[in-house]
Amino acid sequence: MAHADAVESMLRALLDDRPRDGEVARPSGLLQAIRHGALGGGKRLRPFLLLESAALFGATGTAPLRVAAALECIHCYSLIHDDLPAMDDDDMRRGRPTVHRAFDEATAILAGDSLLTYAFDVIASEETELPAERRVELVTRLARAAGLGGMAGGQFLDLAAERETPGEDGILRLQAMKTGALIRFACEAGAIVGQASPADRERLAEFGSAIGLAFQLADDLLDLTSDAATLGKAAGKDAAAGKATLAGLHGIEWTRRQLSGLMDQANDLLRPFGEAGTMLRTAARFVIERDH
Amino acid sequence: MAHADAVESMLRALLDDRPRDGEVARPSGLLQAIRHGALGGGKRLRPFLLLESAALFGATGTAPLRVAAALECIHCYSLIHDDLPAMDDDDMRRGRPTVHRAFDEATAILAGDSLLTYAFDVIASEETELPAERRVELVTRLARAAGLGGMAGGQFLDLAAERETPGEDGILRLQAMKTGALIRFACEAGAIVGQASPADRERLAEFGSAIGLAFQLADDLLDLTSDAATLGKAAGKDAAAGKATLAGLHGIEWTRRQLSGLMDQANDLLRPFGEAGTMLRTAARFVIERDH
Repeated sequence: MAHADAVESMLRALLDDRPRDGEVARPSGLLQAIRHGALGGGKRLRPFLLLESAALFGATGTAPLRVAAALECIHCYSLIHDDLPAMDDDDMRRGRPTVHRAFDEATAILAGDSLLTYAFDVIASEETELPAERRVELVTRLARAAGLGGMAGGQFLDLAAERETPGEDGILRLQAMKTGALIRFACEAGAIVGQASPADRERLAEFGSAIGLAFQLADDLLDLTSDAATLGKAAGKDAAAGKATLAGLHGIEWTRRQLSGLMDQANDLLRPFGEAGTMLRTAARFVIERDH
Repeated sequence: MAHADAVESMLRALLDDRPRDGEVARPSGLLQAIRHGALGGGKRLRPFLLLESAALFGATGTAPLRVAAALECIHCYSLIHDDLPAMDDDDMRRGRPTVHRAFDEATAILAGDSLLTYAFDVIASEETELPAERRVELVTRLARAAGLGGMAGGQFLDLAAERETPGEDGILRLQAMKTGALIRFACEAGAIVGQASPADRERLAEFGSAIGLAFQLADDLLDLTSDAATLGKAAGKDAAAGKATLAGLHGIEWTRRQLSGLMDQANDLLRPFGEAGTMLRTAARFVIERDH
């Protein structure tokens, strides 16, 4: 996948050891941990959605690529912190030790903090070759998608859900925050970078919301139906952990119907773009039908 | 101190429970932890320096106040994360339990992440009543002062220094990153908000660097000379922890001479502003002569 390679190269270039103007030095031990958490892995789904959304409006090159790399920094920071012993306590990620296992907890906390901080530098920098108005807008939207009213707030609710099971509305809100907000941002940000009209921007954001919800439902479904060999983790893990999911609440058939409805909705939202929307349609199908 | 009250009010308003456009919801439990870490305490030194630096160039009102509040969000996030068991492992802060003691570790990590993220929203938002060019510049400078080449990198070096004692250059670099970068930013940001000339902006940044270094030296000196009652923590704690400081390396007299030299340097840098620089001169003296 060409996008994933381009994002990897951009991340590698951004995470070199040369201090940028305003930085004192980049400590090599910290940089190593950051690279461990950000390079060489992952499906790069969010960057893909961002790059394809931008391409829909004719935007290619440095600007969308830097914003996509910044978004991936945010995603990777969240994985590093979520894996910590005080959170989900995971030892392995993408077939490698998690950052706090390969280094130590303090380093993992600081690597996550650094990636989160760096994301905003990468977007706001004039190297991002966008008018300042677009850059501040992207910073604001990303901060809201990632912060207390978005991803971080969603992770908080997810941890709380282990103690007190939320109802259907609660699960929907939790998921819209924890995984939905960043996927929605990916699609909306592509439209912002591509200087899309307000109507098209809203259309892409809605597409992102549909994909985000589908992503979560597909994940729940996998947990219910896969055997451990296909999934690469213990199947039925959510139920065993007492974690309420929509799929668990309504069953496999209901979830499949929902996914099919979301695919229809995604197709409807992309219809005005005709042939140009093919890659995003394919991405939607990939998210909905994935089996691992 | 009027500034501290204004910053407290601004932080309180920013940390209300109303989700902003682009946020789904603000979970009350997380918000409570964030408020615990950000409200009702601290000297608010960095906001003070920012507000007085801005005032030097005639900038008052919403713009400098929002940037000052954002800076304080970054400072408070760093305290929350630094206090964690995996880092400095502190139970008390400002006479109250630290966030991970009052809540739990996962909540403290997420509260810090949220404050860090929110800082960039607060600056980038159009409510900050600055041209977009100034807002992106502030985002970039703050990210570089706080991230892997600034404060977070400095905290990493500080933890590493407990295992391998750095030399004098190493200590200077560590301190310029860990405490210096954000204090330098405070003064430079005031000049940016105040649309100062490049020369004046550099002058303020240099003033900030001098204050930052003085802040650290005064801290080291306090550790060497105070009794526990004045300091509110165990005196000689640095030496006991095997932590190398410039004051420890060169002694009390050398440190006093350095502080006096930094006060002269600060005064020289402020001379062109005449009477208008009085408050910043007083702040410099406060930093250098503080005994707690």
